[in-house]
Amino acid sequence: MSQRYAYLGPEGTFTEAALREHAPGPADARFVPMTGVAAVLDAVRAGDAEAGMVPLENSVEGGVNATIDELVNGEPLQITAEVALPVEFSLLAAPGTRLADIKRVVTHPHALAQCRGWLRAELPEAQTFTAASTAAAAHLVAEPGSSYDAAIAARIAGERYGLAAVAVGIGDHRDAVTRFVLVRRPEPPGEPTGADRTSLVAFIRDDHPGALLEILSEFAVRGVNLTRIESRPTGHGLGRYCFCIDAEGHVREARVAEALMGLRRICSGLRFLGSYPRADGGRPELRPGTSDADYTSAESWLSAVREGRR
Amino acid sequence: MSQRYAYLGPEGTFTEAALREHAPGPADARFVPMTGVAAVLDAVRAGDAEAGMVPLENSVEGGVNATIDELVNGEPLQITAEVALPVEFSLLAAPGTRLADIKRVVTHPHALAQCRGWLRAELPEAQTFTAASTAAAAHLVAEPGSSYDAAIAARIAGERYGLAAVAVGIGDHRDAVTRFVLVRRPEPPGEPTGADRTSLVAFIRDDHPGALLEILSEFAVRGVNLTRIESRPTGHGLGRYCFCIDAEGHVREARVAEALMGLRRICSGLRFLGSYPRADGGRPELRPGTSDADYTSAESWLSAVREGRR
Amino acid sequence: MSQRYAYLGPEGTFTEAALREHAPGPADARFVPMTGVAAVLDAVRAGDAEAGMVPLENSVEGGVNATIDELVNGEPLQITAEVALPVEFSLLAAPGTRLADIKRVVTHPHALAQCRGWLRAELPEAQTFTAASTAAAAHLVAEPGSSYDAAIAARIAGERYGLAAVAVGIGDHRDAVTRFVLVRRPEPPGEPTGADRTSLVAFIRDDHPGALLEILSEFAVRGVNLTRIESRPTGHGLGRYCFCIDAEGHVREARVAEALMGLRRICSGLRFLGSYPRADGGRPELRPGTSDADYTSAESWLSAVREGRR
Amino acid sequence: MSQRYAYLGPEGTFTEAALREHAPGPADARFVPMTGVAAVLDAVRAGDAEAGMVPLENSVEGGVNATIDELVNGEPLQITAEVALPVEFSLLAAPGTRLADIKRVVTHPHALAQCRGWLRAELPEAQTFTAASTAAAAHLVAEPGSSYDAAIAARIAGERYGLAAVAVGIGDHRDAVTRFVLVRRPEPPGEPTGADRTSLVAFIRDDHPGALLEILSEFAVRGVNLTRIESRPTGHGLGRYCFCIDAEGHVREARVAEALMGLRRICSGLRFLGSYPRADGGRPELRPGTSDADYTSAESWLSAVREGRR
Repeated sequence: MSQRYAYLGPEGTFTEAALREHAPGPADARFVPMTGVAAVLDAVRAGDAEAGMVPLENSVEGGVNATIDELVNGEPLQITAEVALPVEFSLLAAPGTRLADIKRVVTHPHALAQCRGWLRAELPEAQTFTAASTAAAAHLVAEPGSSYDAAIAARIAGERYGLAAVAVGIGDHRDAVTRFVLVRRPEPPGEPTGADRTSLVAFIRDDHPGALLEILSEFAVRGVNLTRIESRPTGHGLGRYCFCIDAEGHVREARVAEALMGLRRICSGLRFLGSYPRADGGRPELRPGTSDADYTSAESWLSAVREGRR
Repeated sequence: MSQRYAYLGPEGTFTEAALREHAPGPADARFVPMTGVAAVLDAVRAGDAEAGMVPLENSVEGGVNATIDELVNGEPLQITAEVALPVEFSLLAAPGTRLADIKRVVTHPHALAQCRGWLRAELPEAQTFTAASTAAAAHLVAEPGSSYDAAIAARIAGERYGLAAVAVGIGDHRDAVTRFVLVRRPEPPGEPTGADRTSLVAFIRDDHPGALLEILSEFAVRGVNLTRIESRPTGHGLGRYCFCIDAEGHVREARVAEALMGLRRICSGLRFLGSYPRADGGRPELRPGTSDADYTSAESWLSAVREGRR
Repeated sequence: MSQRYAYLGPEGTFTEAALREHAPGPADARFVPMTGVAAVLDAVRAGDAEAGMVPLENSVEGGVNATIDELVNGEPLQITAEVALPVEFSLLAAPGTRLADIKRVVTHPHALAQCRGWLRAELPEAQTFTAASTAAAAHLVAEPGSSYDAAIAARIAGERYGLAAVAVGIGDHRDAVTRFVLVRRPEPPGEPTGADRTSLVAFIRDDHPGALLEILSEFAVRGVNLTRIESRPTGHGLGRYCFCIDAEGHVREARVAEALMGLRRICSGLRFLGSYPRADGGRPELRPGTSDADYTSAESWLSAVREGRR
Repeated sequence: MSQRYAYLGPEGTFTEAALREHAPGPADARFVPMTGVAAVLDAVRAGDAEAGMVPLENSVEGGVNATIDELVNGEPLQITAEVALPVEFSLLAAPGTRLADIKRVVTHPHALAQCRGWLRAELPEAQTFTAASTAAAAHLVAEPGSSYDAAIAARIAGERYGLAAVAVGIGDHRDAVTRFVLVRRPEPPGEPTGADRTSLVAFIRDDHPGALLEILSEFAVRGVNLTRIESRPTGHGLGRYCFCIDAEGHVREARVAEALMGLRRICSGLRFLGSYPRADGGRPELRPGTSDADYTSAESWLSAVREGRR
């Protein structure tokens, strides 16, 4: 049986585009849409899918809470890859439709928010409606006798549902990007590439003030830079948060490993979410004294001291 | 004409309950529901409302992005009060309805997520549907010939729409709390009460690593504790965030003022969102050397030094 | 041949008192006075002495530069024990001498400085003279036909040179203490006792501002407290210092070892001077997450993460 | 009566050379040698001298404890200028003396230590003797029938006592420098020059671990660099220190003033020792956000916030 890869569906979502761009697994791998992030991740956990692609954050809308909360609280999973995709919105309609014909536009509320400027300028008279996803909106438009004239969705949704692009690149933020992650059941992280990211969740011990400063210090003292930090409630009352952190580097690198062990000691909980190549290929600028060679050399020094050699 | 206070509607939302509990303004003040957080805040900005009540964060769902992004990016507004309300979900239906009669339940997706355990145990056969808000769900149930049997909503929604509570306290997180804020057009903050909170948004200067650590240090060195920190994308690409911060204390207190001026100097932007009494009445434990008297004494010392007096 | 232990002479110094109190080695060990700290340490380096006792710091006068500079710059040695001795000055004279007879007093300049108050009150008419050490002063007084009537010195000097104490406890700082250290050729440090001190010298890499803050952070992040920090010039121009540091704990304890390796990586040089029991028996208050067990547990966690186990 | 300036004598010391180089006061000012640092400073305190020049630190020997302890503990004085002088040792003898004639050399112990290499190479047979200062040594050599053949001292001592230089630049550390300070009774510090130094003494509140880190943080958060930090015992037992600190900048600059007020609040005591032009003319590299203009701008921002203006 061919390998199955789950993704946040329905067919035609930006997530499907991310999965196709990343193209994990063998040539005959099957990509399977699922309804909701939880369904994707549960399929992976249950072994029904080899891996799953889900959105993690958007440069305009922020973190995708459904994904984050599942990774934070659900049965452990591991990020093994990331894909960053420009969010290019297209106005999709039945082939032959002209802009002037479009009176009723359907899409996901986020997409609507991000195309408001374009709509006001180009389709000031059009009515707008919302659907559960941009792909679902495209699907609605494609149905025979649809009450909608056009959908705002990813270009891939047009291919899926036989719609044509009346306009492309209609988002107000031209540089909007969504970051997707491919998750698997826990496994040994791959070898460092030199341009890696490590994701984790830190739970603060009894919420004392200064706890976040202590967490950041564990990274800073080892010269590990953070690329993202986001608080999420733990569900146990206002003022109780955990922190979702992306750091430069790989858990197999000494400075990252030492920082993680430091967090492990001072936090009430620490969940490792994966070390994986960065989509942007960014390499950290190593501060003097933080390379693996520096760590090895310091360990040799300590051994000599403990053995009375100088 | 009586004063108008806007709130996130429709009638019967938890936000209305928060506004009624806080009861700002004179006895004849009118409370006006609006569709969407942006509408509430725009009404305040335009002077159509004296103030507006909106949700800011929930202990289970996290920050309310619509509110946060408006406060961060929109025309400046100022928080002058906060209300923390337990989120008590009720199952509301037409008077006389028994639990066993209920086959179709409608509510907001967040409420659905937070009552999933109760529904599985008590109404395992019921179908669930979503609406734009819990109050809208109650409204739908109250309509003549409604296709729904019950709504999950705030108790106040039952009063508004003539529904009876078939069950109360059905949320899975018994201690779930939502924090609401009352915002006004900018005005001089009120006097400190000793149990105050200050909210602000800090924009990082060119995203250098360590910027968050610097921000936290500005607070830490003045002994100002943070009660919440949340990153939000600036909309200018992945990896670019601003930080929404709640700190203990009042902008009229010296240690808070000095920390804010410090942020102002190191950040590319700093937006003050208000100093106001804490809903929980929590008073900071002052670190030695951080009281207003300590600041005054240190200023006298500096003056003496500069004047050559010892 | 019996073991030889060198000490800062001549006979009758406070250092001899410290060595006798500590009483290292077998019963027939010989204690050998040497002229100058450098001579003591060179005897140890050359193998002419098993170990050497020298003063390190005084609670009134500060660090003993001769000792510190030798430990910092000379051929490596290792501190294996410390002794803290109250500095009790006695006024010593030939037996039978009365206070009223004393016109000329000789002692070391530091002792003179520390007994100035007593002398002004009790011997306002006496002339004072200086000698190379308090013991040398006692020796001068004991010589036949001495031109001095009394010496200020340690009680032990009276025993050595046949002088009687005319007055005792005549220092102005009643709680003055000198800390002595016993040094040996480098050897494996002994086992931790739970109340240990670790001494080291850190050389800053290219003197950038903030270097000292970085050094302190390496300790702070591992919860290691410092009991002393003292800068010494490196001899390469004003503004170029190294730091002599005493920290709580033992190099065989994980938190101390990690801090030392951190220093080793960020400093241009790091010299380990020893881990040894504290004279005052003080035990560190361990911050949560810094015990050896915490370190072991964090290492297990890391192994599990790297192997894909959760 | 002409103004009197005291200096650490006797005539011919490096301190006199420093005072002549700095040349404070009117043309007819008199430079008066005193015996000991305390005498110089007491003359200033008593108004017997306008100001006094004393050595503060040497790049080889370290801080001059006599000066530091007087500035720390004595009646307050204020540093108003500094002079950094290369320590160039000369071998001085009666005119006509040849190197080969020199059998007995006298000087101060520090000078002896710093010329040991030269003496071993050039005068291996010579005997060495010590005196209370290098100038006193020159004086001894100049006496009729002196038992010494030569003194190691400053070139100026040769001029004073009629001796000729047999050899110059004989120190082993060719770049050795001593820093001298001119102190006055407290007065308003002069205007900033842009290349200033500020000296102070900080007494730690109840010696808690981490106190030094807190002190350094007060500077770091305002972007103020330190050029020197040195601990001195307070005289109240081992482990009790104060810190003598030199920082870049001037007490009339906002960032320095704020840092000092911060120290004043967290320390049990803070003594200001002066803001004065740096001898080396070094200008701080200002971190963004730390100029006086940045401070003024942040204050305006705070005023606007407190008045409800945006």
